[in-house]
Amino acid sequence: MNFASDNVTGVSPEIMAALNAANEGAAKPYGQDEYTHRLETQFNELFETEVTIFPVATGSAANALALSTMTPPFGAIYCLAESHINADECGAPEFYTGGAKLVTLPSSDGKIHAADLAAVLAHSGAAVVHHVQPAAVSITQATEAGTVYSLDEIHAIAEVTHSHGLYLHVDGARFANAVVSLGCSPADLTWRAGVDVLCFGATKNGAMAAEAVVFFNQALTKTFGYRRKRGGHLFSKMRFLSAQLEAYIKEDLWLKNAHHANQMARKLAQGLVALPGVKLCYPVEANEIFIQLPEAVIQGLLADGFHFYRWGGDSNTIRLVTAFNTKDTDVIAFREVAQRYSSRDFLAFDLKV
Amino acid sequence: MNFASDNVTGVSPEIMAALNAANEGAAKPYGQDEYTHRLETQFNELFETEVTIFPVATGSAANALALSTMTPPFGAIYCLAESHINADECGAPEFYTGGAKLVTLPSSDGKIHAADLAAVLAHSGAAVVHHVQPAAVSITQATEAGTVYSLDEIHAIAEVTHSHGLYLHVDGARFANAVVSLGCSPADLTWRAGVDVLCFGATKNGAMAAEAVVFFNQALTKTFGYRRKRGGHLFSKMRFLSAQLEAYIKEDLWLKNAHHANQMARKLAQGLVALPGVKLCYPVEANEIFIQLPEAVIQGLLADGFHFYRWGGDSNTIRLVTAFNTKDTDVIAFREVAQRYSSRDFLAFDLKV
Amino acid sequence: MNFASDNVTGVSPEIMAALNAANEGAAKPYGQDEYTHRLETQFNELFETEVTIFPVATGSAANALALSTMTPPFGAIYCLAESHINADECGAPEFYTGGAKLVTLPSSDGKIHAADLAAVLAHSGAAVVHHVQPAAVSITQATEAGTVYSLDEIHAIAEVTHSHGLYLHVDGARFANAVVSLGCSPADLTWRAGVDVLCFGATKNGAMAAEAVVFFNQALTKTFGYRRKRGGHLFSKMRFLSAQLEAYIKEDLWLKNAHHANQMARKLAQGLVALPGVKLCYPVEANEIFIQLPEAVIQGLLADGFHFYRWGGDSNTIRLVTAFNTKDTDVIAFREVAQRYSSRDFLAFDLKV
Amino acid sequence: MNFASDNVTGVSPEIMAALNAANEGAAKPYGQDEYTHRLETQFNELFETEVTIFPVATGSAANALALSTMTPPFGAIYCLAESHINADECGAPEFYTGGAKLVTLPSSDGKIHAADLAAVLAHSGAAVVHHVQPAAVSITQATEAGTVYSLDEIHAIAEVTHSHGLYLHVDGARFANAVVSLGCSPADLTWRAGVDVLCFGATKNGAMAAEAVVFFNQALTKTFGYRRKRGGHLFSKMRFLSAQLEAYIKEDLWLKNAHHANQMARKLAQGLVALPGVKLCYPVEANEIFIQLPEAVIQGLLADGFHFYRWGGDSNTIRLVTAFNTKDTDVIAFREVAQRYSSRDFLAFDLKV
Repeated sequence: MNFASDNVTGVSPEIMAALNAANEGAAKPYGQDEYTHRLETQFNELFETEVTIFPVATGSAANALALSTMTPPFGAIYCLAESHINADECGAPEFYTGGAKLVTLPSSDGKIHAADLAAVLAHSGAAVVHHVQPAAVSITQATEAGTVYSLDEIHAIAEVTHSHGLYLHVDGARFANAVVSLGCSPADLTWRAGVDVLCFGATKNGAMAAEAVVFFNQALTKTFGYRRKRGGHLFSKMRFLSAQLEAYIKEDLWLKNAHHANQMARKLAQGLVALPGVKLCYPVEANEIFIQLPEAVIQGLLADGFHFYRWGGDSNTIRLVTAFNTKDTDVIAFREVAQRYSSRDFLAFDLKV
Repeated sequence: MNFASDNVTGVSPEIMAALNAANEGAAKPYGQDEYTHRLETQFNELFETEVTIFPVATGSAANALALSTMTPPFGAIYCLAESHINADECGAPEFYTGGAKLVTLPSSDGKIHAADLAAVLAHSGAAVVHHVQPAAVSITQATEAGTVYSLDEIHAIAEVTHSHGLYLHVDGARFANAVVSLGCSPADLTWRAGVDVLCFGATKNGAMAAEAVVFFNQALTKTFGYRRKRGGHLFSKMRFLSAQLEAYIKEDLWLKNAHHANQMARKLAQGLVALPGVKLCYPVEANEIFIQLPEAVIQGLLADGFHFYRWGGDSNTIRLVTAFNTKDTDVIAFREVAQRYSSRDFLAFDLKV
Repeated sequence: MNFASDNVTGVSPEIMAALNAANEGAAKPYGQDEYTHRLETQFNELFETEVTIFPVATGSAANALALSTMTPPFGAIYCLAESHINADECGAPEFYTGGAKLVTLPSSDGKIHAADLAAVLAHSGAAVVHHVQPAAVSITQATEAGTVYSLDEIHAIAEVTHSHGLYLHVDGARFANAVVSLGCSPADLTWRAGVDVLCFGATKNGAMAAEAVVFFNQALTKTFGYRRKRGGHLFSKMRFLSAQLEAYIKEDLWLKNAHHANQMARKLAQGLVALPGVKLCYPVEANEIFIQLPEAVIQGLLADGFHFYRWGGDSNTIRLVTAFNTKDTDVIAFREVAQRYSSRDFLAFDLKV
Repeated sequence: MNFASDNVTGVSPEIMAALNAANEGAAKPYGQDEYTHRLETQFNELFETEVTIFPVATGSAANALALSTMTPPFGAIYCLAESHINADECGAPEFYTGGAKLVTLPSSDGKIHAADLAAVLAHSGAAVVHHVQPAAVSITQATEAGTVYSLDEIHAIAEVTHSHGLYLHVDGARFANAVVSLGCSPADLTWRAGVDVLCFGATKNGAMAAEAVVFFNQALTKTFGYRRKRGGHLFSKMRFLSAQLEAYIKEDLWLKNAHHANQMARKLAQGLVALPGVKLCYPVEANEIFIQLPEAVIQGLLADGFHFYRWGGDSNTIRLVTAFNTKDTDVIAFREVAQRYSSRDFLAFDLKV
């Protein structure tokens, strides 16, 4: 009954099977193997265009390496304060870019808005030697707030981004959840909307440790191989990364897994919002719920062995994350327990009065 | 019949089994899981002292991160030109250290010698602001030449290293092969000999992707966690790294695997040196053979489907690497084929005369 | 009639004379000369304590080098968005620190407030591996808004800073103006208030190109010499940097120069605030004035050949900077011209109505 | 009587006069002043082609910034072990390039030879992801051995350099001495011979602190301005750097100064080689002499108050450097004193026997 994060999960059975299957015979190292070669075609098909992909093992590596191809050391990367690259990677982007600056934008519903971006870029200090130079915009899809950028929103951001000569990066640690949520194609949600580079996450959605950095903008790929090696992220037994990614996209496993996670989140949220004193912080559009619960309910849930995080310090806001393997029964149990403590809470409240 | 490298191998069955077993239930992310916690005790026992260990997935990450704790950005790391950190990591140490300089020493039999190190350190520019500052010495055990430093040699290097206030790093990508070769304990070969940090390799010897950075010098550990995260090397599903390492050292699997690899190398070398026109470049003390063969023999072996690398450019020197899963029959086949072409070679030679 | 900046000025005559005088005979290079040696004693006396000083030629070098001794590459430096280190040095701090993050705090009157700092540090992510680690606080004295931190304000900031284990840095590009403004001693305004490192600016106040990085916290000095050399900031003919600094502090030249600049600013401001439609943005406490003027007045002043910058984009706010060599007659002229256009402005306004 | 280095000198009177003259009125900061603008035309004329120049204050800054435009962070810069960039700048090139590797080549007479460069580049690991990527070649003109590359030698190096797609950098800390020595034009010795970027030194030859980074290859200039600012090397009162450079090249001052220095070196060397037991280490082609003297002579010269450095540790080799202001009488005095001790030395030797 763990709603703490989608990274507490193990490996999706199909992917574990693929790892076992890949453990046959010798394979050329460092990505010269057949698994990795096959991936290229498979990702071209998946995205309906020619892409260049680089498998890596962690989301932070994917993001930081991707960004390092999109900015000079004296560049500025526009993002949200709460974005993973800014808040949760211990400065990995600064490290990999040689010291670029992450400039934070206003946020609402966990999103950058094109108008805010345009306003900031209008006074960005471009071409003035005293200031870091605008280089890239990074958005997270699905967002850190559990919301999802619409196609229109991404189009608008991409237009502002490109009109100023910048590149658009997508942190897609939960990209699958966004695709499922919108019901659109991966192509629509990326290059057709103006995305230059996508970090296509698999780990949170069922892989052991695998992400693919997907370049739609081929002009950016030239140095990636060297940067990956230099960062210690080129695996000698690369077939085991590639086999995960192959299994992940095979027969739409990634979408099935994300569909389940999203459904569980929706079901969980629906049950909770009906309770008194409860308030959703953001629309539940992917597999994360940010919700305010009465303190007694939170305490009760914790006491009953549910795992989740409080969010934003001392408040009574919690985050609930569902995953590819969240059990329907756990969701039902959570709702029931919350309901039970919710009643008590208000009883206590009445009595006090 | 692949003697190209020990990284063309898959995963040792015991380790694959451990990965499958670890895929049960939820686990705390980022190393707060039970597997990772258990490792600490297990490595303390393995090394007969209190160590601090950090699992990472690649040897380059292990080396570069380890070195980044041992030198300031303006430091010098003394090593061999042919060392992996200098020649084969695309500048990973320079990247992780913030630009430290790798200063190369003379090599014989693939080893640094204490006297050479002492001579260089006598004129190192220490405390003079114009020069990079001596910070660390890095040796590779077993060496890139397939030889093994003796305990005395390491003691001597450590003494010079520490007498100048430097730290001693061991790139142990093939540490298991060295331990088996010397028949000593891991403790004898490391901290008792003066080693400060060991990169304890598992990938080449049967893991999927797992190395442990082992700190004997506790003063160096303080920043490692941040550097690992910042480098994108902190795995969310860390249990799968730790499970590999646990299985690797359990019931001496690492030594059994290395023992087999070393034995195969010795057997292969013994068969080859008996042939005419053949010359070993270095003593065969671990699982690598560097050997000069008549060109006709090399051509014949390649034609018959054996995989291996020529070494050092245009010469007729080849490298043969054995591994935990090298088949006895493959070694025998290699010897026989070499013998067959060797006879022809000399026949051809005779006829030409 | 140039009020654009204090860096449009030349060299104070006393300092130019010192440069000419220093051009006698041979001198040991790289700071081993007598001028540099003498500086140490002179700065000890100036600050009434044992300090370690390092002359450099630019304020950006001083700040970035100073900060590089106060934070690890994965550290956070707390500052204002508008601070020179964050906004006007093209990422120099990120470069010199190896990628530390500048985290911006709320600003009022150009100042960080201790309470805001405390609130942010209460949730700083200290000791959590996912987040950059709190390392230093940087304030600017006099501030970028032309205001001056009081002794109490610095004491309060220092207390919060140190209670969290951080270091306090002062960008003192206009430190002289602050000392004069407060009428306190340099010691009171620095180490007695808890400052660890001061970048003691001279260039804006009469030097050709000279700043002194002054360490009160001796634990931080160890790597500075190497970092300065590595940054290309160790001058071979160092005597010419040191001679500037010597002349700058000799017979209180720095205070006399700053006193004049401050007085000119006050006089200029007093004349302007009396005009209709005029609003001071901040109290004028040093040598900078940020003021809103009617557009017609701004246009008139520009037309009459006065040099100054508009500030903050499209608004009718301008910045006026006075310096050690600002002429009293220029201040009077500026006031008179402003007054003249001011009358017309309101006349025009009346007529339009 | 100081032969320790050309950086113990002060400022050439013509340059000091220019600094005094430049101290008139206000000037736009950061290189927008008239002095800096004029320099562009003046350097175009000097080099008979369109160049882009950037004034900086130190040779290390010039070299490191120049190199940072010529290599990616994962690049290799080929140079000599004894080159200033490799041996005497505390890792400045590594710092400014983000961790590029300096790969050292064999040296004879202080020079890289085209054939050696070609041999190394033939096995450079280009386009192989495991290795740092060949990016630039750096030569020093005049060399660290006091010799001078001929035009043919530079042509040959440039041809190899460019045929592998690399850039050619010249550390010209003593470029004037080389031009004078060869009697050729600055254009012949640089872009006509294939040089991409020259660090045109002035400090050692009479400036206070001024060097010009001169780009012949315009494709490399794009990021320099940002890198210079970010490195803290953009002077606010830039006119004082530019005024030095203007005076330095005006009416061939730079050549006159170098001519004198070279002449003094030749005269000094001629006197010394005539003495018994003396051996020149390299031909004296610029303003440096590396010479073996009998120990008694060295001791005598030191005792009589001459300043110079021993070179290369314990040997009896010394380095003598002449400069623009070396007095003829000092050279004569040095020769006479050497001769005096030389006689005694051999007398003592005879007596001992």
